[in-house]
Amino acid sequence: MKAVRFDSRLRLVPDASVPARDNEALVKVLCAGICNTDLEIVKGYAGFHGTLGHEFVGRVVEASQCSLVGRRVVGEINAGCGECGLCLAGDSRHCPGRTVLGIKGRDGAFAEYLSLPAGNLIEVPDAVSDEAAVFVEPLAAACRVIEQVSITRSSRVAVIGDGKLSQLILRVLADAGCDLTVIGKHEEKLETAATTGARAIRVDRALLESSDAGARALKLAGNEKFDVVVEASGSATGLSMAISLVRPLGTIVLKTTHTGETSLHMFPVVVDEITLIGSRCGRFRPAIDLLESGKVDIGPLISHRFSIDDAAAAFDEAAAPASNKVLLHMV
Amino acid sequence: MKAVRFDSRLRLVPDASVPARDNEALVKVLCAGICNTDLEIVKGYAGFHGTLGHEFVGRVVEASQCSLVGRRVVGEINAGCGECGLCLAGDSRHCPGRTVLGIKGRDGAFAEYLSLPAGNLIEVPDAVSDEAAVFVEPLAAACRVIEQVSITRSSRVAVIGDGKLSQLILRVLADAGCDLTVIGKHEEKLETAATTGARAIRVDRALLESSDAGARALKLAGNEKFDVVVEASGSATGLSMAISLVRPLGTIVLKTTHTGETSLHMFPVVVDEITLIGSRCGRFRPAIDLLESGKVDIGPLISHRFSIDDAAAAFDEAAAPASNKVLLHMV
Repeated sequence: MKAVRFDSRLRLVPDASVPARDNEALVKVLCAGICNTDLEIVKGYAGFHGTLGHEFVGRVVEASQCSLVGRRVVGEINAGCGECGLCLAGDSRHCPGRTVLGIKGRDGAFAEYLSLPAGNLIEVPDAVSDEAAVFVEPLAAACRVIEQVSITRSSRVAVIGDGKLSQLILRVLADAGCDLTVIGKHEEKLETAATTGARAIRVDRALLESSDAGARALKLAGNEKFDVVVEASGSATGLSMAISLVRPLGTIVLKTTHTGETSLHMFPVVVDEITLIGSRCGRFRPAIDLLESGKVDIGPLISHRFSIDDAAAAFDEAAAPASNKVLLHMV
Repeated sequence: MKAVRFDSRLRLVPDASVPARDNEALVKVLCAGICNTDLEIVKGYAGFHGTLGHEFVGRVVEASQCSLVGRRVVGEINAGCGECGLCLAGDSRHCPGRTVLGIKGRDGAFAEYLSLPAGNLIEVPDAVSDEAAVFVEPLAAACRVIEQVSITRSSRVAVIGDGKLSQLILRVLADAGCDLTVIGKHEEKLETAATTGARAIRVDRALLESSDAGARALKLAGNEKFDVVVEASGSATGLSMAISLVRPLGTIVLKTTHTGETSLHMFPVVVDEITLIGSRCGRFRPAIDLLESGKVDIGPLISHRFSIDDAAAAFDEAAAPASNKVLLHMV
């Protein structure tokens, strides 16, 4: 089968083996999305070698439960050991022995077929299109924010970053209802972000590279600090800005993963008793519900579509600053 | 009056003015304690100039409420504006316009007299000695940890650091009841710490300066990560070690304040969804209760006593690595 693999370089392999894992379901992939994590892996993040991709929708072609075969599904990307305390408690997302689709110890979704435990698969309602279903995984990661932090109508929330994940987080927060601000550097993306009702603040490179970037961003935001700041900029400097923007006793949700070291002044975190929460994967059901109900429309977030045969061009496009979600169609 | 003041250098001023603030109580200081924050201020932290000191016990000599006069008191060190939302909600610790005794905009306790709003003063029960009462403020800061994080009998908790604040945190945690480990580098201090029932792990300078300090400390701790890690080492490297020691979905409480930048790998915080909570001042009542009931005995934590006349020597002693709490007696 065709598969987009990374092993020190990215390439389309025309004759990869169809995955065969005992006691798992085999899924024919219909469509998949390129995530920043994929771009980071290509730069060396997580040390993963294998078939990339973890945002997908597909159709089950083989499973021990016959009722699954033929179903259109999305899949929870973490596959736990099934035996540790976390797995037994129903949450394999932090199982220390987990594999992660296209990220850790398990070939991913940029291929004609993938394998996952049947328990990881969730059927997609008819009202959710293939392309929308590809957003279930990143939208679940966005929903994770409101699983972790209580957001009310009166909460003042800032999202740092106007990229793919930020756009979804903004939509989840807008649906939850709160006073919403987005801080980013791309004019078009900020326009897309502002359709959620968020106030958009544009910061330029000169500001971001200045030693008082946080104070300057706060000034642009009217010098009123935020109850919650979601840092999803993908850049090393975002957390420092978040610390400048959050009020005493406020909360920072950290989404950005990058491989390098971050230099931070931590004393405001202590003096202002700020809470900082790392945030990764969310549960799929709330994300599916948001898509099925039409509360989140991912249409404006798709910037390009490619065939798997043009995977290299798709990755180039996904890495372009102006790009939003790039989809790979397998058929 | 005599006062220990800092204005680019530390000195005993023999003829400082007795503080006179409208609508506040005047307190004759009996005894005060030197805290690491005082040592940091002398190095330039917080940019404070004035009379140092914020851990004290004293006797009220003037107050608009006559019933206060003559009472032996300790004092909440944050004095709020009284008008903002935080102050009106009864918590001036984060009032943006606050002054802080001996730290920010308000002369402190290393003097014969100090001034605080009457509402900041709490009477000390007879069962609590003067020297024990000096520990109310730092013990309240230690109690803050269990205000912020739920600790149960089965919680595995590590405290990084064996200094003054760590010793109090260990006593609070031991009273709360949990599986307790202390990680430090001073043999004698670890022995004192171990009297709380905590398992003591000694790390040497070579380990602390190694690039894999966290992994090596975890190995010494039996390779089992902790539910909660309290970082009170006072060093820039402590937080990095805390990140290595805490389990996925676990919590780090950050007590260390220092002026410099900290270099951190933040991606484990995101991937393991770690919560990091800055922690500063606590409420005094729980600390007074712990001292009055005898549940916390501060006797072993006093290493030296000085007269205010020997303040310079007291500061030198407080800065010595082997030193524990150094007290200044005003009379």
